[in-house]
Amino acid sequence: MDSLRVELGERSYSIVIGSGILDSLGEAVGQLGCGPRLFLVTDEIVGSLYGERVKNSLKKAGFEVLYRELPAGEQYKSLQSAEILYTAALDGGLERGGAVVALGGGVIGDLAGFVAATYMRGVSYIQVPTTLLAQVDSSVGGKVAVNHPLGKNTIGCFYQPRLTFTDVQVLRTLEPREVRSGLAEVIKYGVIRDAAFFRYLEENLEEVMALQEEALIRVVKRSCAVKAEIVQMDEREKGPRAILNFGHTIGHALEALTGYRVYRHGEAIAVGMAVASAIAAARGLLKEAERERLVCLLRRAGLPVSSPFKAEDVVRILPRDKKAHRGRPRFVLPLTLGRVEVFDDVSDDEVVAALEECRS
Amino acid sequence: MDSLRVELGERSYSIVIGSGILDSLGEAVGQLGCGPRLFLVTDEIVGSLYGERVKNSLKKAGFEVLYRELPAGEQYKSLQSAEILYTAALDGGLERGGAVVALGGGVIGDLAGFVAATYMRGVSYIQVPTTLLAQVDSSVGGKVAVNHPLGKNTIGCFYQPRLTFTDVQVLRTLEPREVRSGLAEVIKYGVIRDAAFFRYLEENLEEVMALQEEALIRVVKRSCAVKAEIVQMDEREKGPRAILNFGHTIGHALEALTGYRVYRHGEAIAVGMAVASAIAAARGLLKEAERERLVCLLRRAGLPVSSPFKAEDVVRILPRDKKAHRGRPRFVLPLTLGRVEVFDDVSDDEVVAALEECRS
Ligand SMILES: NC(=O)c1ccc[n+]([C@@H]2O[C@H](COP(=O)([O-])OP(=O)(O)OC[C@H]3O[C@@H](n4cnc5c(N)ncnc54)[C@H](O)[C@@H]3O)[C@@H](O)[C@H]2O)c1
Ligand SMILES: NC(=O)c1ccc[n+]([C@@H]2O[C@H](COP(=O)([O-])OP(=O)(O)OC[C@H]3O[C@@H](n4cnc5c(N)ncnc54)[C@H](O)[C@@H]3O)[C@@H](O)[C@H]2O)c1
Ligand SMILES: [Zn+2]
Ligand SMILES: [Zn+2]
Repeated sequence: MDSLRVELGERSYSIVIGSGILDSLGEAVGQLGCGPRLFLVTDEIVGSLYGERVKNSLKKAGFEVLYRELPAGEQYKSLQSAEILYTAALDGGLERGGAVVALGGGVIGDLAGFVAATYMRGVSYIQVPTTLLAQVDSSVGGKVAVNHPLGKNTIGCFYQPRLTFTDVQVLRTLEPREVRSGLAEVIKYGVIRDAAFFRYLEENLEEVMALQEEALIRVVKRSCAVKAEIVQMDEREKGPRAILNFGHTIGHALEALTGYRVYRHGEAIAVGMAVASAIAAARGLLKEAERERLVCLLRRAGLPVSSPFKAEDVVRILPRDKKAHRGRPRFVLPLTLGRVEVFDDVSDDEVVAALEECRS
Repeated sequence: MDSLRVELGERSYSIVIGSGILDSLGEAVGQLGCGPRLFLVTDEIVGSLYGERVKNSLKKAGFEVLYRELPAGEQYKSLQSAEILYTAALDGGLERGGAVVALGGGVIGDLAGFVAATYMRGVSYIQVPTTLLAQVDSSVGGKVAVNHPLGKNTIGCFYQPRLTFTDVQVLRTLEPREVRSGLAEVIKYGVIRDAAFFRYLEENLEEVMALQEEALIRVVKRSCAVKAEIVQMDEREKGPRAILNFGHTIGHALEALTGYRVYRHGEAIAVGMAVASAIAAARGLLKEAERERLVCLLRRAGLPVSSPFKAEDVVRILPRDKKAHRGRPRFVLPLTLGRVEVFDDVSDDEVVAALEECRS
């Protein structure tokens, strides 16, 4: 069992990572000093696969467990679901000293985390992420949220967990497409901050995609470490954290354009990373050869690197910060594999050209 | 215009206090660097009295103002109201750099503060408290919340405002009963921490109740200062902050027993303070003469000091912390006027005796 410390002053916590460790969750939670009652939240798919095991592990460690499954799916990351959970928690007698345990992907993590943050002004929050995306991304950084019909993640706050407990073995039951989607964020970490990790991925992608234990642990651990380093610099997303949005400017636009129904998040940002690299290469910021290496790695991971949409349609819906230079969208561009920078001066023409180049 | 600093590290902020200053709100908000769009939230009663003035002051300072009134009343401090506000904010284009301005009593303050804390992971929050209770109590300390049908204030978090802007002149339109209710908390501050302030109240109660400007400003300012001192020691209510609950053990029980429909909050805690003093006196902790002075001041403020309920009915619903000594309720007892301590060992018999003594 490996472990990683996220240093955020009095909000510091550990990420425990291992393979086949799910049954020791109770023990790990036992060391936090919360309880005696816990509220275990999951979705129906993850619950049917791992609910009993997790419940038993917690009970064996002496906890009373309230248990609640919600249907799986992004549409259940809502204020209505939060209300269902508040009611279940109050009804079941969850106390201020208790904890919410989120067992699932980013949807359950974000939702249960929001409930933990706002139940009785905040109870302990424990994450057991079960998708690759959740293990490497959504479980690090303290962003918790629910969606509003008028905007994704618009209701939420920053709230750090007391513990993140990651068993990579549960990824074996995950759809391969979900694994690939998570890989996009993994590759992102290499590009924005760690050239050696990028090379490791180039050399070991097959092992990772085959869910080989050792490789997975290494990848999850390094990804969490990179994200944690960035979050530690900027917990509340005031500046430096922006580099985590590499690939996300175009990625979010593609998701919005398709009503969140076509792309998995990682797929959309894979296209976004390819487009951002094309912009960077056209500006002479990034060597063609490095751009090729990124595109090649994304392809090998089974991720899309081009979009079928008219460039103008994508550009039209890019978010434009009023305060930004001439209302231009903000882009994170790679200077080399391992380093990126934020740019507020990318013109629509540059974006169109890059999108055209990447059009499928 | 007077001002007071609440020191909470990077969450520090000022409380501005004055009489007839409402029209300078815009100017004060202008110095915070938020905007350009603000979301002004109030209730129908306060809105009809002060809505236009506040809106104009903000507009004159260059802000765009989204405006929303909710019906007045505790039952609107709900997740449903929060949702209405989220929708209005998103619909009206309130951005992450914007701010929520709460114009009203504790209900609007708690609700709008909760929305500010959770809208886009937190936008600036500005309080313009308009009841005495809100000016001296709910606007200090960063507790924001909505009610759930299964429990008051059970959904919420800690979230500090960027500015509290208090005009005591608006109290002129407040029901006298609301003024008296707020006075209970004011008297509480004297008992828990400031003997000189208690004496000031004894000597100037008439001026305060007549809403004489200078006296009001002094009272609001000193009350905020006492609460701020305590909150600064214990922002997230882990320990010392408990002394703010003087009078609240019995007070909350009376409110619950009567379905929150009989007592105003300050009235219930006035009875609670009288009962706690009776317990303290019976234990020999508090001199009879000091207990008399407290009871006398409460009476002069038009507050009840006894309850018509059967002692057993009150004791039965006292909250009992499982971890507490023999499941006994927690009481804050005065040792003298100006100093209190938390006790976990008060027996039901002692409570019954004190309640009987204070029974009307
Ligand atoms: N908080 C953050 O910083 C952050 C970062 C990125 C994404 N997110 C959020 O994460 C969400 C997406 O998360 P996600 O991609 O994990 O989606 P998800 O939670 O919907 O999970 C995807 C699907 O996989 C299933 N599943 C989960 N674990 C499984 C397992 N081990 N075996 C079999 N099936 C399993 C789920 O039931 C679901 O159907 C979005 O709402 C997004 O906004 C948050
Ligand atoms: N956050 C905290 O730390 C804290 C502390 C104490 C109480 N509270 C909360 O505060 C709430 C009670 O607050 P409240 O007593 O201010 O009640 P309130 O907000 O309901 O106001 C009482 C009534 O006075 C009216 N009113 C307000 N200002 C007025 C004015 N200037 N002129 C005329 N009418 C006016 C309101 O419309 C309302 O009808 C409760 O929900 C309680 O939980 C919070
Ligand atoms: Zn992402
Ligand atoms: Zn009170």
